[in-house]
Amino acid sequence: MMKELALAKVYQLLEPGPVVLLTTSRKGRANVMTMSWHMMVEFEPPLVACVVSNADYSFATLRATRECVIAIPALNLAQKVVDVGNCSGRDVAKFETCGLTPVPAERVAAPLIAECFANLECKVADTRLVNKYNLFVLEVLKAWTDPRQKNPKTIHHHGYGKFVVDGDIIKLKSGMR
Amino acid sequence: MMKELALAKVYQLLEPGPVVLLTTSRKGRANVMTMSWHMMVEFEPPLVACVVSNADYSFATLRATRECVIAIPALNLAQKVVDVGNCSGRDVAKFETCGLTPVPAERVAAPLIAECFANLECKVADTRLVNKYNLFVLEVLKAWTDPRQKNPKTIHHHGYGKFVVDGDIIKLKSGMR
Repeated sequence: MMKELALAKVYQLLEPGPVVLLTTSRKGRANVMTMSWHMMVEFEPPLVACVVSNADYSFATLRATRECVIAIPALNLAQKVVDVGNCSGRDVAKFETCGLTPVPAERVAAPLIAECFANLECKVADTRLVNKYNLFVLEVLKAWTDPRQKNPKTIHHHGYGKFVVDGDIIKLKSGMR
Repeated sequence: MMKELALAKVYQLLEPGPVVLLTTSRKGRANVMTMSWHMMVEFEPPLVACVVSNADYSFATLRATRECVIAIPALNLAQKVVDVGNCSGRDVAKFETCGLTPVPAERVAAPLIAECFANLECKVADTRLVNKYNLFVLEVLKAWTDPRQKNPKTIHHHGYGKFVVDGDIIKLKSGMR
């Protein structure tokens, strides 16, 4: 169903800054949150920094298990992305409530999300900035894309439920990776 | 010419993940680089994390002066963004070569860029992850927008000169800031 993506290409998915979903799992109970504060840190092995607020239910699980999945939703999941962001794993089983399908990952206990066009299995690589900024550095161990979703358009959050959708593509001659 | 932007709104500019320009200045000599690896870390005061490679000429200046400006270009500057990314301040005076106009900032020695629709004056707030990851945490001290640029479309880098331009805007009911 999902196809492995070369780790060297992971940055091309996250560098544009899409809204993503972050899954975690503890004691067999999976959770998912919406996240926009992330960036690439290294090409390969791919390192990703992200901020998971200590007010988020996922925070303690991420810190304790040191594993997560970053799943990238396309435009068709926008309403579910907002739904996920507006409830807490403290109160509800979010995968069921929000209509998302967990799929076992290969390297981590956190699940992939079947509906997302890309899924990145991650382990926590550095926690030095967690106490002060809730900033985790992750290493991507395995990456998957869904070949059935062609040219997915991602969404970018501008605050308070306003999202900008991917539009035109331009190609300029560049030596930059 | 430029209008001050409330610091509480800065995240709305960077959270969507646009390509930005980063300016620095040392001994009266300004430089500018293209950057896509950045993310918000805190709403207010606004903290921003970014990766500036130690292969970039700007790295040493940023580390030494602890000051920079993050300038956000709209689509009309796409070619200049690529031009900036494809030469080095080691070899050329990039503002002149690339046709960008430096404007004195208020709180830092690094210049604003007149052509950009937003400019964020920043100081380095944390360097603990610089040695290992080239990751700087910045604090935004002052933010400016150009009121003449209405609804600017930003560009998002997917690698090798491929950029996705902002498209449609959607608004969904959300409790998320």
